[in-house]
Amino acid sequence: MPGVNRGGGWPGLPAVTPVDAAAGDRARRELDALAKPPGSLGRLEDLAARLAAIAGCATPPALNRPAALVFAADHGVVSRGVSRWPREVTAAMVGQIVAGRAACNAIARVVGASVTVVDVGVATPVTPHPGVTHARVADGTSDMLDGPAMSPAQAGAALAAGADAARAVIAGGADLVCVGDMGIGNTTSAAAVVAALCGADPRAAVGPGASGSRFVRRKEHVVRAALELHRSRAARDVLMCLGGLEHAAIAGAITACAAARVPAVLDGVNAGAAAMCAVRMVPAVHGYLIAGHRSHEPAAALALDHLGLQPVLDLEMRLGEGTGALLAVPAIRAASTLLRDMARLDEVAG
Amino acid sequence: MPGVNRGGGWPGLPAVTPVDAAAGDRARRELDALAKPPGSLGRLEDLAARLAAIAGCATPPALNRPAALVFAADHGVVSRGVSRWPREVTAAMVGQIVAGRAACNAIARVVGASVTVVDVGVATPVTPHPGVTHARVADGTSDMLDGPAMSPAQAGAALAAGADAARAVIAGGADLVCVGDMGIGNTTSAAAVVAALCGADPRAAVGPGASGSRFVRRKEHVVRAALELHRSRAARDVLMCLGGLEHAAIAGAITACAAARVPAVLDGVNAGAAAMCAVRMVPAVHGYLIAGHRSHEPAAALALDHLGLQPVLDLEMRLGEGTGALLAVPAIRAASTLLRDMARLDEVAG
Repeated sequence: MPGVNRGGGWPGLPAVTPVDAAAGDRARRELDALAKPPGSLGRLEDLAARLAAIAGCATPPALNRPAALVFAADHGVVSRGVSRWPREVTAAMVGQIVAGRAACNAIARVVGASVTVVDVGVATPVTPHPGVTHARVADGTSDMLDGPAMSPAQAGAALAAGADAARAVIAGGADLVCVGDMGIGNTTSAAAVVAALCGADPRAAVGPGASGSRFVRRKEHVVRAALELHRSRAARDVLMCLGGLEHAAIAGAITACAAARVPAVLDGVNAGAAAMCAVRMVPAVHGYLIAGHRSHEPAAALALDHLGLQPVLDLEMRLGEGTGALLAVPAIRAASTLLRDMARLDEVAG
Repeated sequence: MPGVNRGGGWPGLPAVTPVDAAAGDRARRELDALAKPPGSLGRLEDLAARLAAIAGCATPPALNRPAALVFAADHGVVSRGVSRWPREVTAAMVGQIVAGRAACNAIARVVGASVTVVDVGVATPVTPHPGVTHARVADGTSDMLDGPAMSPAQAGAALAAGADAARAVIAGGADLVCVGDMGIGNTTSAAAVVAALCGADPRAAVGPGASGSRFVRRKEHVVRAALELHRSRAARDVLMCLGGLEHAAIAGAITACAAARVPAVLDGVNAGAAAMCAVRMVPAVHGYLIAGHRSHEPAAALALDHLGLQPVLDLEMRLGEGTGALLAVPAIRAASTLLRDMARLDEVAG
């Protein structure tokens, strides 16, 4: 089939068929025929057209089974003092998420989404729990200032783990997949990935993350040094050298969503960095992405601008865990129901 | 009790006790103790603090019973050619809403809210239906260029009808009330009200509404003439002379919500105009308001800026029917659950 993108050279990544733009155009015409002033549902209409293009059908399916995948991993770069939190907090927060007591759980309950944590490389022990998918590739990444953060085998395994996790929730009925992250140190890694792929100065990409503004200068210094050490700007190299295991896993997950024609909702800066890698490797992924929320992290805005995605929400959040993606679910679901549920103008006007 | 506002001189309006700012401050401190970086839930934390102040309790109640009230009425000013739609469309759309086939119904189903239409002055016959509350004050307003749009008795009756409708849904269990509108011609009336109360030029307040940009100049001309005819800028006079029956009813409804300590979620430009009137008449209402969505209508932004309210959503919608308020419900509900559902930092960090 023309235009099919075949896995970007990674064996664990599936082929992706581009979205059906004609179905999106048909949806736009049908939205104009609904009982409302044309365009008066604003960006909800854009979402409806995008969902139609993803489904390949002018009337997109109702999205009744949203699922969140939270990919957890640790980062070697934490040894450079880029976070106020010790890496043990990653495992501790995984414990809170599976206990249903993290922010993502509170939001997921309100929006009716499931939450699955996927351990792709938490360095310290994660208490076994049925809510955790164990897919640990390594005990966190290596320090990006000592060499590549991941070996090619590790990056490939993390991509495949992410793709497997997405396939599993889709096989279980999920029709909308939110991707998020948990990993102490990962905003430094995400800023490095985004700066490398956008050609941005580290100063424009680094933000306070979970640690606060007093860590920003140190993070900027580390990112600058890492960009000097790792010169290739090919997405595959950027992901391996600067990225985290959760970034690779998210890239794999959204590629698998695209392959299954299921919309993938991006959370903040980490999902944005991962999406940039995925789209560079497998361009057809782009049409399947919905940006849930504009994170307060500078690299998140850079990534979304670069991807040309306008987020559904802008609530100044910067928590991760998929929270921003989850909060966008009701608006996306509402958009999916318009063409199914609303009367047409000709029924009202006679 | 000091600070209680007693009905603003209208017999149908209840007294309102100001929100409990100390409870909001306690909520802020407790939000900072949750297992997340301080402030990382951004405006969700602002909403949680506001809900705590409304409830008078540091941990706000979960909001599990959202209800939308859609106030429908017609406008004498339609005879001036300010709308591309005949006034019969108001009754037709009421029919679609009670049939569950309007945009507000599609969104309400996704967010789990009830929808009640209150006819406070639809000019043409509304098909009887159990989903309509009949509280018709008049067959629409009079033309604001011929004299006051409403008599004092009509405005008072519409305020009381709105307050009654809010009390009824709250008595039925509603714990979060969205207020919206349906009324051909009402963006002209809302723009006039907002321009009068803000001291803005009509050009800055008038927008395309449901009719499109080719009606903007005529609407501006009508609003300018109305502001010259009706010189008083007292909220009571502005509401009577320039407002619609649905604006009066929304003002009554949000005042009754405030009296019952129930948060009121504003939809777009019509709810914004009504809220300006209500807050001028009963200032303590202000603390109970949440702006759901920034409508694309210019007067909506003017009203929200004047009220100092930052909307939850900005999706470029301009439909009315409570759609923007309804779409904000999940974020408000999520905010209400944080202090109840999330672990504390000291549980995670040991």
